[in-house]
Amino acid sequence: MSSTTPRPSLGSAEFGVGARITLSVMRDDHVDVITSALAAPDADDVVVETGDVSTFVSGDEQALVRWSSELVAAAGRSGAHVAAVLHFSRGCPGEVVCELPGGAGPRRAELPTADPTGVHATAEWALYPLVDSVRDGVEPDHMRDIEAAVDLARRNGTFRGSQHFVTRLEGDVADVIATAAAGWVLVGRTVQHVTSHVTLSISSPSAAAR
Amino acid sequence: MSSTTPRPSLGSAEFGVGARITLSVMRDDHVDVITSALAAPDADDVVVETGDVSTFVSGDEQALVRWSSELVAAAGRSGAHVAAVLHFSRGCPGEVVCELPGGAGPRRAELPTADPTGVHATAEWALYPLVDSVRDGVEPDHMRDIEAAVDLARRNGTFRGSQHFVTRLEGDVADVIATAAAGWVLVGRTVQHVTSHVTLSISSPSAAAR
Repeated sequence: MSSTTPRPSLGSAEFGVGARITLSVMRDDHVDVITSALAAPDADDVVVETGDVSTFVSGDEQALVRWSSELVAAAGRSGAHVAAVLHFSRGCPGEVVCELPGGAGPRRAELPTADPTGVHATAEWALYPLVDSVRDGVEPDHMRDIEAAVDLARRNGTFRGSQHFVTRLEGDVADVIATAAAGWVLVGRTVQHVTSHVTLSISSPSAAAR
Repeated sequence: MSSTTPRPSLGSAEFGVGARITLSVMRDDHVDVITSALAAPDADDVVVETGDVSTFVSGDEQALVRWSSELVAAAGRSGAHVAAVLHFSRGCPGEVVCELPGGAGPRRAELPTADPTGVHATAEWALYPLVDSVRDGVEPDHMRDIEAAVDLARRNGTFRGSQHFVTRLEGDVADVIATAAAGWVLVGRTVQHVTSHVTLSISSPSAAAR
């Protein structure tokens, strides 16, 4: 076997594929709205652990996008002003030091999609390829992939512009989340450890005032 | 002049030092609480631009920490359940492509501090050194600096443990924010483009239930 033989992809759990989600509902009945929203999506293909700062969810890329899109849309349907922060990560099961050795990745996955929810959001998105240069044994080309991710946002109609530190997205909750996740998966084709942070705002009084 | 002569540090604006903050107040009167909180800190040394997804603030590292600590604490003093997401960035004024050429950094800054606020928070923190390997002309050692950042959290008493993708912090809002910013500045001593994301939770009903 030559050293260039591709190894089989690791499973999503083994590769540390997951998300942390902070869902904020700006109304007195926020506990009821959040509890109902957490119960709304089918959870057969994900593992969900709620905490006081965020909810951790693991599963494959497609399952994470479906589950989080349904969660955020369910909260949005309450009519309350909702802010949702999604932090996707893959390729680094661990904290400061990844438990995976450099060279375990990248892991190839199809671009995730989600069914339209009918709930509209504005959003800000940041994508982070955490290249460990030579150690990964893979020649990274993350600028090419980030540009491909932003092109994808232009094509699917969610791209609204560039701001300090973030890309502004707007559209159906499903399209916004799928865009942030697609960029993460695209960059993950050449980089092992990639994170993607997207903040969605639904029914914002300041957006309505414009 | 040899090529190893350090160049003078760029100013904070030129170097793209800033933060985006999403402040969520989970009560019917959230607009009043957020508006009052935004008016609370002295804003002489920062530039603030509010948006529907986040508030952008620029200034030097110390000013950002003081301003954001006072902002988040002011919202917390309402007694409402508050979630605050801070996204610090330095070294990349731009979006997909940094306007600064590789080699402009790193920029040295003192570790920022903030006066205690008396408001307690639990938090989750992620620190991202965005190494452009050879292009920066600087030998990065971001693992050493991230470990130094986590050591700092252990010494100042905010460290609570490691979770999937994040470090858990707890303490006075000022100490939590100063810790996330200190790690960002420490890593910034060897890496040009560094971001730090911290989510704070104040008066969470799920924390109170434990």
